[in-house]
Amino acid sequence: MKKAVTFGEIMLRLAPEGYYRFIQAETFGATYGGGEANVAVSLANYGIDASFVTKLPKHEIGQAAVNSLRRYGVDTKSITRGGDRVGIYFLEKGASQRPSKVVYDRAGSSIATATKEDFNWDEIFEGVEWFHFTGITPALGDNVAEICMEACKAAKERNITISCDLNYRNKLWSKQKAGEVMGELCKYVDVCIANEEDASDVFGIKAANTDITAGKVDHEGYKDVAKQLSDRFGFSKVAITLRGSISASDNNWAAMMYDGKEYYFSKGYKMHIVDRVGGGDSFGAGLIYSTMMGYEPQDIIEYATAASCLKHTIEGDFNQVGVDEVKKLAGGDASGRVQR
Amino acid sequence: MKKAVTFGEIMLRLAPEGYYRFIQAETFGATYGGGEANVAVSLANYGIDASFVTKLPKHEIGQAAVNSLRRYGVDTKSITRGGDRVGIYFLEKGASQRPSKVVYDRAGSSIATATKEDFNWDEIFEGVEWFHFTGITPALGDNVAEICMEACKAAKERNITISCDLNYRNKLWSKQKAGEVMGELCKYVDVCIANEEDASDVFGIKAANTDITAGKVDHEGYKDVAKQLSDRFGFSKVAITLRGSISASDNNWAAMMYDGKEYYFSKGYKMHIVDRVGGGDSFGAGLIYSTMMGYEPQDIIEYATAASCLKHTIEGDFNQVGVDEVKKLAGGDASGRVQR
Amino acid sequence: MKKAVTFGEIMLRLAPEGYYRFIQAETFGATYGGGEANVAVSLANYGIDASFVTKLPKHEIGQAAVNSLRRYGVDTKSITRGGDRVGIYFLEKGASQRPSKVVYDRAGSSIATATKEDFNWDEIFEGVEWFHFTGITPALGDNVAEICMEACKAAKERNITISCDLNYRNKLWSKQKAGEVMGELCKYVDVCIANEEDASDVFGIKAANTDITAGKVDHEGYKDVAKQLSDRFGFSKVAITLRGSISASDNNWAAMMYDGKEYYFSKGYKMHIVDRVGGGDSFGAGLIYSTMMGYEPQDIIEYATAASCLKHTIEGDFNQVGVDEVKKLAGGDASGRVQR
Amino acid sequence: MKKAVTFGEIMLRLAPEGYYRFIQAETFGATYGGGEANVAVSLANYGIDASFVTKLPKHEIGQAAVNSLRRYGVDTKSITRGGDRVGIYFLEKGASQRPSKVVYDRAGSSIATATKEDFNWDEIFEGVEWFHFTGITPALGDNVAEICMEACKAAKERNITISCDLNYRNKLWSKQKAGEVMGELCKYVDVCIANEEDASDVFGIKAANTDITAGKVDHEGYKDVAKQLSDRFGFSKVAITLRGSISASDNNWAAMMYDGKEYYFSKGYKMHIVDRVGGGDSFGAGLIYSTMMGYEPQDIIEYATAASCLKHTIEGDFNQVGVDEVKKLAGGDASGRVQR
Amino acid sequence: MKKAVTFGEIMLRLAPEGYYRFIQAETFGATYGGGEANVAVSLANYGIDASFVTKLPKHEIGQAAVNSLRRYGVDTKSITRGGDRVGIYFLEKGASQRPSKVVYDRAGSSIATATKEDFNWDEIFEGVEWFHFTGITPALGDNVAEICMEACKAAKERNITISCDLNYRNKLWSKQKAGEVMGELCKYVDVCIANEEDASDVFGIKAANTDITAGKVDHEGYKDVAKQLSDRFGFSKVAITLRGSISASDNNWAAMMYDGKEYYFSKGYKMHIVDRVGGGDSFGAGLIYSTMMGYEPQDIIEYATAASCLKHTIEGDFNQVGVDEVKKLAGGDASGRVQR
Amino acid sequence: MKKAVTFGEIMLRLAPEGYYRFIQAETFGATYGGGEANVAVSLANYGIDASFVTKLPKHEIGQAAVNSLRRYGVDTKSITRGGDRVGIYFLEKGASQRPSKVVYDRAGSSIATATKEDFNWDEIFEGVEWFHFTGITPALGDNVAEICMEACKAAKERNITISCDLNYRNKLWSKQKAGEVMGELCKYVDVCIANEEDASDVFGIKAANTDITAGKVDHEGYKDVAKQLSDRFGFSKVAITLRGSISASDNNWAAMMYDGKEYYFSKGYKMHIVDRVGGGDSFGAGLIYSTMMGYEPQDIIEYATAASCLKHTIEGDFNQVGVDEVKKLAGGDASGRVQR
Repeated sequence: MKKAVTFGEIMLRLAPEGYYRFIQAETFGATYGGGEANVAVSLANYGIDASFVTKLPKHEIGQAAVNSLRRYGVDTKSITRGGDRVGIYFLEKGASQRPSKVVYDRAGSSIATATKEDFNWDEIFEGVEWFHFTGITPALGDNVAEICMEACKAAKERNITISCDLNYRNKLWSKQKAGEVMGELCKYVDVCIANEEDASDVFGIKAANTDITAGKVDHEGYKDVAKQLSDRFGFSKVAITLRGSISASDNNWAAMMYDGKEYYFSKGYKMHIVDRVGGGDSFGAGLIYSTMMGYEPQDIIEYATAASCLKHTIEGDFNQVGVDEVKKLAGGDASGRVQR
Repeated sequence: MKKAVTFGEIMLRLAPEGYYRFIQAETFGATYGGGEANVAVSLANYGIDASFVTKLPKHEIGQAAVNSLRRYGVDTKSITRGGDRVGIYFLEKGASQRPSKVVYDRAGSSIATATKEDFNWDEIFEGVEWFHFTGITPALGDNVAEICMEACKAAKERNITISCDLNYRNKLWSKQKAGEVMGELCKYVDVCIANEEDASDVFGIKAANTDITAGKVDHEGYKDVAKQLSDRFGFSKVAITLRGSISASDNNWAAMMYDGKEYYFSKGYKMHIVDRVGGGDSFGAGLIYSTMMGYEPQDIIEYATAASCLKHTIEGDFNQVGVDEVKKLAGGDASGRVQR
Repeated sequence: MKKAVTFGEIMLRLAPEGYYRFIQAETFGATYGGGEANVAVSLANYGIDASFVTKLPKHEIGQAAVNSLRRYGVDTKSITRGGDRVGIYFLEKGASQRPSKVVYDRAGSSIATATKEDFNWDEIFEGVEWFHFTGITPALGDNVAEICMEACKAAKERNITISCDLNYRNKLWSKQKAGEVMGELCKYVDVCIANEEDASDVFGIKAANTDITAGKVDHEGYKDVAKQLSDRFGFSKVAITLRGSISASDNNWAAMMYDGKEYYFSKGYKMHIVDRVGGGDSFGAGLIYSTMMGYEPQDIIEYATAASCLKHTIEGDFNQVGVDEVKKLAGGDASGRVQR
Repeated sequence: MKKAVTFGEIMLRLAPEGYYRFIQAETFGATYGGGEANVAVSLANYGIDASFVTKLPKHEIGQAAVNSLRRYGVDTKSITRGGDRVGIYFLEKGASQRPSKVVYDRAGSSIATATKEDFNWDEIFEGVEWFHFTGITPALGDNVAEICMEACKAAKERNITISCDLNYRNKLWSKQKAGEVMGELCKYVDVCIANEEDASDVFGIKAANTDITAGKVDHEGYKDVAKQLSDRFGFSKVAITLRGSISASDNNWAAMMYDGKEYYFSKGYKMHIVDRVGGGDSFGAGLIYSTMMGYEPQDIIEYATAASCLKHTIEGDFNQVGVDEVKKLAGGDASGRVQR
Repeated sequence: MKKAVTFGEIMLRLAPEGYYRFIQAETFGATYGGGEANVAVSLANYGIDASFVTKLPKHEIGQAAVNSLRRYGVDTKSITRGGDRVGIYFLEKGASQRPSKVVYDRAGSSIATATKEDFNWDEIFEGVEWFHFTGITPALGDNVAEICMEACKAAKERNITISCDLNYRNKLWSKQKAGEVMGELCKYVDVCIANEEDASDVFGIKAANTDITAGKVDHEGYKDVAKQLSDRFGFSKVAITLRGSISASDNNWAAMMYDGKEYYFSKGYKMHIVDRVGGGDSFGAGLIYSTMMGYEPQDIIEYATAASCLKHTIEGDFNQVGVDEVKKLAGGDASGRVQR
Repeated sequence: MKKAVTFGEIMLRLAPEGYYRFIQAETFGATYGGGEANVAVSLANYGIDASFVTKLPKHEIGQAAVNSLRRYGVDTKSITRGGDRVGIYFLEKGASQRPSKVVYDRAGSSIATATKEDFNWDEIFEGVEWFHFTGITPALGDNVAEICMEACKAAKERNITISCDLNYRNKLWSKQKAGEVMGELCKYVDVCIANEEDASDVFGIKAANTDITAGKVDHEGYKDVAKQLSDRFGFSKVAITLRGSISASDNNWAAMMYDGKEYYFSKGYKMHIVDRVGGGDSFGAGLIYSTMMGYEPQDIIEYATAASCLKHTIEGDFNQVGVDEVKKLAGGDASGRVQR
């Protein structure tokens, strides 16, 4: 089985049920998620031996986070136990014209207060082919950025392919700081993943003629952004998701990939949304899987886009779909007919 | 803080969860609501010192109704305690071609059996700028109509602005009776709010060329209705909501306002509905708030319409949104993108 | 009261709540359903004295299945008690591009292991006007196919009208076996019901120019299929449902009927789906009811289609709607406006 | 199958889940129950053809009440449909030192506003052996008391055995009024059932030396009460339940019966309570069933007491136990060992 | 209405439903509580005008904490809004031999990072008779201890009675630090409340001959402790709760009070526990209320003990009982009989 | 890490929530469990590298069973995938005098239809110290009994310690058949575990003077049984659980062990039961763990008994407790005081 490693934070996600607002909630659904953990679960679902690296407290809430990963087949043996708390995010699901809302309560989490000594990358990368992180990980603090850099260097030494989802979070750091830190890390990255805003937020690279709020997407603009990213950092692949936000309930979805030579655009999907969080991560995981398996470029972008389209129909951060389901949709069957 | 008072009935709302029909229900969600209470909660959410006046039994179900208002910041000190029961309405949520259904069980409620002695309007109106009621309140019985008249007179003496949502309910009284009683009360009213049917049901004023069931809306017809209402009763403002009912799941939504001189039409919204009940009340509250705050006429109708558009995405009668959220939508951002 | 009998299997349906996938589920909603049971409940809801015939174990799970029918007014006195288990099906509700999924666990159920001695058709058919079964019943095993044949013969002797929904299930038998067995049974059938695939699966009769996956429906093709079915078996009526599958969340829906002379097409509906299972059964029940009541052909197909359109908004297998509701929709009011 | 009829009110019971207080509740469990309906369900569970007579509104809440009875096999064909509302009672479950609390909202219910014309006792009593009502029924109003009297007379003419549970409710009528009305009705009653307070409340007959609040029970006192009741009204049987209230969570339970000659005392039970409501009704049903089946006096009182002991472990008003389960406990096996 | 103020932290309480362990939980019940907030709610329930002082973030989770207090009538106008997070505690309910478990996640909460400028005690204490805090408040940090000291001085200047529940929390500070800080604060305290361990943990004052784990309670030992506390700090009243821990499900409960002259012991209760958290706070609130109302010493200790006995039957931190209920139990009726 | 293997069936457990009866249930809690799987989870919770061996279908319900084990750290790599169905058992929780009820629906499960080729015991036993099965496994069918025998022989060859819980199930086989098959298997067993009935049911070895139903336990009788078992099969250890069934809610619990020389009796516990199923399995797991860790005999029996005492407070089949918790109780702290 092919091995992959992802590194980052897994948080406790607390969400009112259905469409209740925070101030109406008497219960919270308690699941766990985070950019890199979501990717690890997806890879495990596709049959990859995926390991997630983080630090979590020894108490039961930390254990529950570990168990949420084990349940879906992720290898958790490289998770360091210690520190004080599991980061939390509160999620309120939007509908129609009312947007979803996220309240973060992640400061002081075990991973945000981790040190280099917490991780032995030589052991972690034993037999591994792929390493993935996102822009959230180094944003957790200078200490974590350093650990991330250490991981990248260790991976590079072993010829492990490195992918990074830019994933800019303005609550965690400024655009300037993000640009500096990510600029250094991206030197080690092979495959760069971004959504329609990240390239601009992190590196000031703009997609021409695209008004995200209005849900307009301009293909030529994205090609330009992908080429700029590739040229600046020498990525072997740049993939960009193209979300058209009609409302909180309905989105258009597509993606493109540039491999330094050609531009590949996926089919587009009109999605009725069950749970939008983790949409980008599911795309990244699809891209990683199909690349690891040696798919053709067009098949890679179709697989990644179909995988993330399906994610929008799944409750929770984790994309609970299998290879057959993704392939069926990527192959063109979007009719949603009952499978008996 | 500006003060406003609303007067009417708050009922226990019993609704099967999700899309279950009444005869399938093993549990009922228990919330509280009613036209004027809904307006009070909205005003409190917008930062107005809103007081709700009614009568409720002393027992725990009455107390729970009081608490539902206190929780969201409504002043409940003018609620008289006594009488036998809290009115109830059962609500079954519709979907697609199946309409929502309401079964009323409100006869004999404390407010419906209240007397003039239960309310001291001099105390209630101390420092108040605005008084609001709907056509449901006087429809509860002749005694309540009289109390309502007394409140209107007391308000008028203090130069309190009075608004009324016509809100015709055919289970409570005939069109003829409604026309008589509302005709008298409307003499005191400054701001009249109505939906696409009320003017016709209560006062026989028809919107030309509009077939409500078919979801067609004719602007010229509504202008005519607004003008007729304004001319007959001397309202300083008439506002009419324009609902286009595509199905129980999808509605178009817009509104217009006439200030005796000009007609102002809001933007239109295509809504995917979470909970349709209280839609009109949230419009009235938006209108009252933006008028109290001195908004320009076009901003008033945009604020009121955006507020009520958002209400359709909120579970329960109460419109749990804040000023910033309404302004964002009224300002044109309907994309529903996640707010992190 | 007019009497009807249906014969088949009722299963325990276990479904994760909302849109959770099987592997996320910590609870299952437990309801009961099955093609012929669903028809019986619909008929009872319409005021027909409907009796459901099956075999169920004596234990409490068997009793719960009986109770689920009694609750909605179905006569259960002809249900034989005995055998080992209630058949089960697991249902995962799809959304958007993700299809619903059914996992069957029905082998060895009491009805699948029943014998001729378990049913006394003379008693069962006392005073009955209509007998209905579907292609699922004989597919449960040769023993059940024989019982079904016995029932058909007994019904025919009493001049009871017999309807059959072809309802092909590839997990239960091959197309070839289905064709053989159903071919014999259909000789006794008066009214044949089918969906867009059944005629092809069971009898090799193809609808020209129709790509079901793509959601395209071709009227001329269906007319041809209906005529072929009618010609081969001498059905007095053939009715075919025409589902256009946009996604798991949205379907178009219509139907047609051929009475040996004319073709009648219903209005079409764009449905937002709450629960798709039992859609075909609700159509059959609407067809049987309106035929029993002597409706005109066009009214029959409109009633049956409107009834099944409404089913898609109801949780569970059973179509919990009444005659007035169906007629209102069949009559053209699809606006979904709140019924107070 | 032996036939029995009970007559009274069935109410919608709204109860917060678990041990939540009314003012904490966001949902209510919605079940249905009432003294005589509870008896009818028990009898149906024991295999008696039990019919429940009442009046219920035509709307869906009325229908849900009907369905709650049909589900458990009660014959509902003698229920008259009409009137305005289903009576409601709110139930808060107590624990330890905190008592359970009931808030009634039953005024104006369909049965409370019924007239003699609503019931045709000749049809209702066709083939019936036993008629049961409780002191709640005539307490609903003079009209209902008259209907009750009419029923008693019709039953007596047909030699139907009549049982009555005194069941005094001080919210419905005064002790004096109860004494007058019940005194007349009891002239027709054969079997009288009472709890430790009823005889005193309704007829002023006191159990000597018994302090109910303190949980003390004095056998000699009860014998005296039973004899007084029997002597005054000529009952063939008087049965009294003996509840020792340790706390809201733990009760002692026993009962006695007097047949005009001998006194029979049941075994005593220490019960850990799941749901106490309907405890008395389940005793009555056990008594009726075992008497109808011709049990020996000691077996009757053991059966009735064991049945009602089990009721205290069942959620809801209805006693969902079968004859085998009652007999097993009455026979002495109270160990609660898992039945595999 | 008499006015009282309490000061401290209110936390989000996240508890798995029923008896599920943390690692089994898929949902958390979300309520709010904390020593001083719990006292404020109790006082409001008893009719005191109770104000709770704290600092909470401006976001929706902070608002939900505010609303949880408003709902039950607590005045929240003195709550400062700002800071980053709401403190959290996770609660796992124990049963039988398995203890309840609390995981704190409260570091960095808004109140723990508050400054003196956040509170204007002159305004807060306007018209106030009583000020209450617990040993948890100063344990949140030196800054909060200073604010607490400032509050005590301001209260003392206005002759406001000050009560303090020692409430030692070893996760927040050492015994030594607690002794120092509390020693200074206690100089301002009039009424001291403690459980069976606090006096020892905070001040090294031991109850002779008492083995808490074994559930033994020795009256003479407690008298000695109370006297030592009173003598050292000059408290006008010392009250100590006496918990006998049989298991997580069953506790014995009693309390004593020393007023510098006499020792008063309450009745004892055997409690079957619904929710044990907040038991001590409900005792404090009962003591404060009954003292404010001028009860006799024995009545004070009976009221406080009965109030806290009832708390053990209530879900959540808040003691949702009224004066009548407490008096009924304090008066000796512990039978738990249904209140209709 | 020490390695252990258990072999048997894991079933889907469907249980109504709380104390609802089967016929009241609208939802089933869906968990997974079975004698040997329960032991594996316990061992994993104690830090043993525990592997569970079985066969499960490839579909999602099979996957959910696998995930339920992975979630709690059990190694599932030796689970063979294939076959048709996951065995099911329905569980109704009893209370007080009403016993819990189990309805099995396990015929035809994947493991019951497995063949020798499905398992490679050489691979499975790599590095393993302990092998455990129960009397349920061979009772599933002759094929499974043969696989079990093969496993025993393979284990014996590798000097793996073998434990067996007799666990007689009368629904699966007769006492005679059980005696024959188990008699052969027990020749390979080192550690024999039994409850108070198994020795009699399987081998006809009676505990003198013990009436299980009456909850009486006689120490001398058990010593005699243990000695007979040990003498007949040469077990190195025989452990017997001693359950005293007061009611479905309250049990006494203790155990004894005989090591061929001495008899060791544990402390006794009075348990208030949350979930009784898996009580015996948790005892076995405690015995295996403490034996593997080299505990002294008295400590072994105390550990095993305390572990299983705690199990009775845990929802679900799996005993979700850790070593520290068990040791604390075994060490004598049963007070259930809150752990903060």
